Amino acid sequence: MRLAVIGGVAAGMSAAARVRRLDPGAEITVIERGPVASYSACGLPYWIDGRVRDWRELIARSAAGFAESRIEVRTGCEAVAIAHSKRQVRLASGEAIPYDKLIIATGARPSRVFPGAFHLNTLGDAVRLKEHLTVTPPGRATVIGGGYIGLEAVEALRANGWSVRLVTRGADLLGRGDAQLTATLVRHLNRCRVPVTLNHAVDGPLDTELVVAATGLKPETALAFDAGIELGRTGAIRVTEHLETNLHGIYAAGDCAESTHLVTGRPVWIPLGTTANKMGRIAGANASGRRERFPGVAGTAIVRVCGLGVGVTGLSASQARKEGFQPVSARIEARDKPRYFRGRLTSIELIADRSSGRLLGAHVLGDDGVAGRVNVVATAITKRMTVDEFQYLDLAYAPPFAPVWDPLLVAAQQLMKHF
Amino acid sequence: MRLAVIGGVAAGMSAAARVRRLDPGAEITVIERGPVASYSACGLPYWIDGRVRDWRELIARSAAGFAESRIEVRTGCEAVAIAHSKRQVRLASGEAIPYDKLIIATGARPSRVFPGAFHLNTLGDAVRLKEHLTVTPPGRATVIGGGYIGLEAVEALRANGWSVRLVTRGADLLGRGDAQLTATLVRHLNRCRVPVTLNHAVDGPLDTELVVAATGLKPETALAFDAGIELGRTGAIRVTEHLETNLHGIYAAGDCAESTHLVTGRPVWIPLGTTANKMGRIAGANASGRRERFPGVAGTAIVRVCGLGVGVTGLSASQARKEGFQPVSARIEARDKPRYFRGRLTSIELIADRSSGRLLGAHVLGDDGVAGRVNVVATAITKRMTVDEFQYLDLAYAPPFAPVWDPLLVAAQQLMKHF
Repeated sequence: MRLAVIGGVAAGMSAAARVRRLDPGAEITVIERGPVASYSACGLPYWIDGRVRDWRELIARSAAGFAESRIEVRTGCEAVAIAHSKRQVRLASGEAIPYDKLIIATGARPSRVFPGAFHLNTLGDAVRLKEHLTVTPPGRATVIGGGYIGLEAVEALRANGWSVRLVTRGADLLGRGDAQLTATLVRHLNRCRVPVTLNHAVDGPLDTELVVAATGLKPETALAFDAGIELGRTGAIRVTEHLETNLHGIYAAGDCAESTHLVTGRPVWIPLGTTANKMGRIAGANASGRRERFPGVAGTAIVRVCGLGVGVTGLSASQARKEGFQPVSARIEARDKPRYFRGRLTSIELIADRSSGRLLGAHVLGDDGVAGRVNVVATAITKRMTVDEFQYLDLAYAPPFAPVWDPLLVAAQQLMKHF
Repeated sequence: MRLAVIGGVAAGMSAAARVRRLDPGAEITVIERGPVASYSACGLPYWIDGRVRDWRELIARSAAGFAESRIEVRTGCEAVAIAHSKRQVRLASGEAIPYDKLIIATGARPSRVFPGAFHLNTLGDAVRLKEHLTVTPPGRATVIGGGYIGLEAVEALRANGWSVRLVTRGADLLGRGDAQLTATLVRHLNRCRVPVTLNHAVDGPLDTELVVAATGLKPETALAFDAGIELGRTGAIRVTEHLETNLHGIYAAGDCAESTHLVTGRPVWIPLGTTANKMGRIAGANASGRRERFPGVAGTAIVRVCGLGVGVTGLSASQARKEGFQPVSARIEARDKPRYFRGRLTSIELIADRSSGRLLGAHVLGDDGVAGRVNVVATAITKRMTVDEFQYLDLAYAPPFAPVWDPLLVAAQQLMKHF
């Protein structure tokens, strides 16, 4: 079996590695536009901030590692067309790569371009920014965009000694449409001396020495579209639950493809590295002849900004309303451990559907235990748990780890008052 | 409504507080044998180790707080009989406390007595040990018992400068019947210079200056039994899912009562503070005329011993086999965060049922994120999730919090090889 993979970052490399494990005889070619494959794009902000000394630490698997696995990784190589009738990928060089199965993992790219701005999407972007920061004394910087990458960029620039402000076109941060979450984050950023301007469309030069644009992404679908592959309503490539496109034998995985939201059951486009790895793994299995199913995403994400952990999963109340639910929510603050264990305040919002009692989502802010608590809700959401079931979950308790009533359960008890 | 509660620690005080909230007119009397009510017994080891400066920090609600809530707490007061036909609790003083509803929250007590040994069950036990440690220079100590309290006692005595050894009658630590978990813990304790002797029944004096006995508990049921209240096969008080005993109007909650194991559906006796609080809350609601249901326990517990977090939930493989399952398990070690975020190794064992694919339990050992990961499995177990569903859970990922493949998912992928 000849496998071609277009895109050699998270989804593409996971797919290639899975095919290698399942089909020792497969001939595997990965076509990567950039100079390096198999790096952690999510780790780039931590190279910028200095925690990662060398970008090579972000490489999951070296070129030598791939050679050893007999995965041919062609970096600096651009696919320009898919001729599915001939089962060929055409490269910019004119060369044609033949395939039996094709996996499209072309990722996403910035949805808007700001002349003179830096980005943080690819390793190339990060190299340019890092070089600039190395030769430029710290000054004033503007980050455009209030999503995860924007917030990580704020943190990374501050670590380099820059004073940073954040500007975003929309009315909220993190794209949850949640005014209270946004207000909390803005307050936190302000306390860390990061001014935030919401509802501000940048259309001219900014009065700062450095601009990082992180204004959101769009799926990289041109190659697929030109080959007759259907896109979904989200604009990303439509796939079956086995991650196959409408063209038999062509799969799509990662940031270029849609997935299903586990709360709504509807197609959704939430580009994230963790989802890309999962989809790549499954697309690889199915390209190898298995029948594995990607169940979808709960909408879980987490970011650390100026020391505060912010985790989300499922739908916010306003998202839930738009999806036709009758959301009710409760927000509590509680210590994440007993006071004598230096327990610090964590803030939890749980959202549920008034008519069914189903948990729909959560926002967790705090220091310790944010990821763990968001993950408990993500698990509950995946199995359609109700608040009534959730409120007496048998969660781990001992003073070094949590209070006797975990903040999640306190929030659930509060939410039960709506039922 | 006149409510009497026998026992004023976790379950009893939660029950009294709930009745107070739901029934402003109720007359509430709590009968507590010890000198202080409403303290965190689970916090006692952290008073011994010096982290908690004053035991009063362990008091959840002060006597003044209860007075303000019109909850009469009678400390130093022993109930000696329940005359249910007269709806009276008789005290050692000869006095009778009338009730309409009664909640029994008598807790548990050490199952064996070692003359001259200290204990860590009640505040009184802790006061005696603390006084001894204050006036005695550190020397050699023996802790008898390899359960949670035994391990916490080891940690607390070490913090006081004692050299400690651990002796236990059984073949394993933490009572999971798991040889590999025990071996890992013994290795860890040995590295921390705590010798461990398994399979050793202490029947004579020990060659150390101090002995702390934590050899397990048995439910305190004499009062209930004498009143004609049925006990279950576990030896604890049998209750309905509404926590009522066989005598109408008498409820039992906390360490003296049985609960249902969510994996087996069978009665189980797992005395823990977190369960006691939940049961108390529900017993209080039902004594107030509501109909709330206690769903049961997943068997979740966590302990920190010599810096290592050890969390368990559900059944171990050997427990699962005894319960009639066909357990298969996978054990992995993985970093809890990326290497460049000082990710440290965490060890995860997942246990599932071969025929149904249901997750049955987990053991998680490590530094950061142990509670969160155990809680994810506890939530999955509660909703009868299969390994197949579990392996693609949408868990939070960002480098400061977790690797892109959470160790839980890596373990699940490993476990899938059995299916």
